Amino acid sequence: MPFFFKVFAVKELKQLTVIGLGLLGYSLLLAAARAAPTVRLVGYSRRALTRRRARRGLPQARIVERIEESVEGSDLVILASPICTFEKIFKTIGPLLPPRCVVTDVGSTKVMPHRWAAGALPPEVFYTGSHPIAGSEKKGIEYARADLFDRSICILTGQNKRAKAALVLKRFWSALNCSVVFMSPARHDRILAGVSHLPHVVAATLINSLAKPDLAFGGAGLCDTSRVASGPSDVWTDVILTNSGNLLKAMDRFACEWSSLRQAVARGDRAAIERSLRAAGRKRLVLTGKKEKAEEVL
Amino acid sequence: MPFFFKVFAVKELKQLTVIGLGLLGYSLLLAAARAAPTVRLVGYSRRALTRRRARRGLPQARIVERIEESVEGSDLVILASPICTFEKIFKTIGPLLPPRCVVTDVGSTKVMPHRWAAGALPPEVFYTGSHPIAGSEKKGIEYARADLFDRSICILTGQNKRAKAALVLKRFWSALNCSVVFMSPARHDRILAGVSHLPHVVAATLINSLAKPDLAFGGAGLCDTSRVASGPSDVWTDVILTNSGNLLKAMDRFACEWSSLRQAVARGDRAAIERSLRAAGRKRLVLTGKKEKAEEVL
Repeated sequence: MPFFFKVFAVKELKQLTVIGLGLLGYSLLLAAARAAPTVRLVGYSRRALTRRRARRGLPQARIVERIEESVEGSDLVILASPICTFEKIFKTIGPLLPPRCVVTDVGSTKVMPHRWAAGALPPEVFYTGSHPIAGSEKKGIEYARADLFDRSICILTGQNKRAKAALVLKRFWSALNCSVVFMSPARHDRILAGVSHLPHVVAATLINSLAKPDLAFGGAGLCDTSRVASGPSDVWTDVILTNSGNLLKAMDRFACEWSSLRQAVARGDRAAIERSLRAAGRKRLVLTGKKEKAEEVL
Repeated sequence: MPFFFKVFAVKELKQLTVIGLGLLGYSLLLAAARAAPTVRLVGYSRRALTRRRARRGLPQARIVERIEESVEGSDLVILASPICTFEKIFKTIGPLLPPRCVVTDVGSTKVMPHRWAAGALPPEVFYTGSHPIAGSEKKGIEYARADLFDRSICILTGQNKRAKAALVLKRFWSALNCSVVFMSPARHDRILAGVSHLPHVVAATLINSLAKPDLAFGGAGLCDTSRVASGPSDVWTDVILTNSGNLLKAMDRFACEWSSLRQAVARGDRAAIERSLRAAGRKRLVLTGKKEKAEEVL
């Protein structure tokens, strides 16, 4: 039986390493400590303050001082640092990874990480991308939560969903209470450009187009519509730059819809405006899972 | 002392009429019942089912069958129906209003309601617009809550903030736990075009530009960014049509920001993208009232 059909359950995982202990990375350690208490947990952050906080919060984890130390003896290594750091980290840890080690990351784009992994990781380790659709506009270890991934979708990316890394990661994320979906990195990046990266540039553009003193009159609507614009600008710049082709297409579809709604507003076309708003409300039911409510206010 | 300097406290208010018993209107009755239990409450909805529900939920209110009945003997009449109904309602109730009665509405735009009030209400009643910045994407009496207006800003609009209607309404909204701000209808409509009506068309356009099957992969970010697109399309079409001049200007400022961010993405300009995202995050602190957090993820 070839190795890539051999599956081991999370309980057979001996050591997990998480590199980058921000919101996602430290939540991963907290969640793994809860879901798989027998697994040895190793964490690394380049910041000394974050390492100290991580040690205080999770005494059973070994928080190491050097990234090279962190991967020794690990079965599963997860990168949870900004995407632009991945290539360098792959090059640093590549020669040190145990053979048949599974490597993944939790970055928001996947085509580039796959390319970097193929170029920098040795052939005897297995890489598959992971994207748990969970997070927050808040960043940093202090916002991490053991239940951050609960009931989230986690997308695994690769060319072969029967590959060892995919099977290991499916067990791992399922143990963290995620629904796992498999797709190619290209399909992932195309879909996420629309449902995640586009909302981000929309929110930022909305805030940038408003006069600061007027914001005091914003209600819950503006607050929610723009929430993601408070996300970390460095992390999101990476996301945009590693998925710019798909994002530009999504931005142009937005601009096209925008221009037709603008025309309807300019000519005072009640039917066209209402049709557009109603279509959005109906389509959005997919997101909320609620039945349409066609009641009248008066 | 001229009549418009005479102030009476909410406790001196004898009868309040609310026309339109949806989310806002019925919340108003519930909040008034809590804040001013000695005031007689009268409500009217054109829908029999809504009237029945209103009677069940608030037995101390008199829910009448005909709009003409609702205003008899009232000191304060509040329109909480869609904006496009205001002109007709002003014409219907105008001749029936007691002299020196105060009339307001809770519509999201203010220039047009002021124009309609000036044309249709008799000179012996006093009109000032009200806009409590509170609400929800949900519509209908079943979502109404006594605390909907708690800690909200309520904008009063008119030319004279010492006018009787403004003073009465300031007392009334303060009793409902709102912070009251006074401005001209024109300034109100200009500000709200940006902080409220623009987010609405942004959210609708975002959803309309996405492929329906992709929505299944949307996380909390997409859900929040697009939440207001689930609002009632008829009510929002009214808002857009009664404030289209200001909205078009706000839309064009958005398009201008959009186009410069798109150019930065197209040329892979890391510095420009990050600058734009950081500016949005910083500006948004006004909304959240939080101090900037400059920490790094890793």
